[in-house]
Amino acid sequence: MSEPEAVVAAFIAAIESKDIDAAVELLADDVSYENVPMSPIAGKEAVRATLGAFLGAAAQVEWPIRRQVVAGNVVVNERLDRFQIGDGWLELPVAGFFEVTDAGLISLWRDYFDMASYTGQLAALTATD
Amino acid sequence: MSEPEAVVAAFIAAIESKDIDAAVELLADDVSYENVPMSPIAGKEAVRATLGAFLGAAAQVEWPIRRQVVAGNVVVNERLDRFQIGDGWLELPVAGFFEVTDAGLISLWRDYFDMASYTGQLAALTATD
Repeated sequence: MSEPEAVVAAFIAAIESKDIDAAVELLADDVSYENVPMSPIAGKEAVRATLGAFLGAAAQVEWPIRRQVVAGNVVVNERLDRFQIGDGWLELPVAGFFEVTDAGLISLWRDYFDMASYTGQLAALTATD
Repeated sequence: MSEPEAVVAAFIAAIESKDIDAAVELLADDVSYENVPMSPIAGKEAVRATLGAFLGAAAQVEWPIRRQVVAGNVVVNERLDRFQIGDGWLELPVAGFFEVTDAGLISLWRDYFDMASYTGQLAALTATD
């Protein structure tokens, strides 16, 4: 496993543990976190706040990787991002692109996914009846 | 350029020329074409029909590639798929995964994107006022 691949693996493991401090430790200060349908989130501290809100809603988080391709400092993966919310699991297919610096920090994290697949499941899982 | 990369480049060039016959020539008979929020489209002839409907609405098509990563028979790219419709351009960021057979045919084409980004722009460009 190349260093960029190991860094991304450690980052995803931290996310799955909901260990936001450990995840953010692996980000460059000026990281750009891009959920493609939305505006980029710039900088480590902004990502920390976003991850807190995002992961806080889930009792468990699993991001199994379906395929991963590495070229130099770029790591690309197809994932199924799973979040346990209430009595069920939200499951979102995602294509992620990561750039890792020579110092072993993630400087770009760009995810492509269908926003309505996320919001629709979230609404169903949090509906009160 | 590896053969898989050359096949994908030729496929995208055919799409941009709206030359559906040339594009479909590069597909395996049992190709799976997957727009991730939707059900997979199975087989060359089903893809031909889908591409005809999809590209027929556009006067011009441009799919510039922002980044491409190749590993063996897998080609991954980040694209901005642009379609000229009416007086404007629909622009859709896409992450595409392609698998190419040893015979130089595309057996998997899987695109990740935000469906509402597509449908919202399409509605705006085709609105009558």
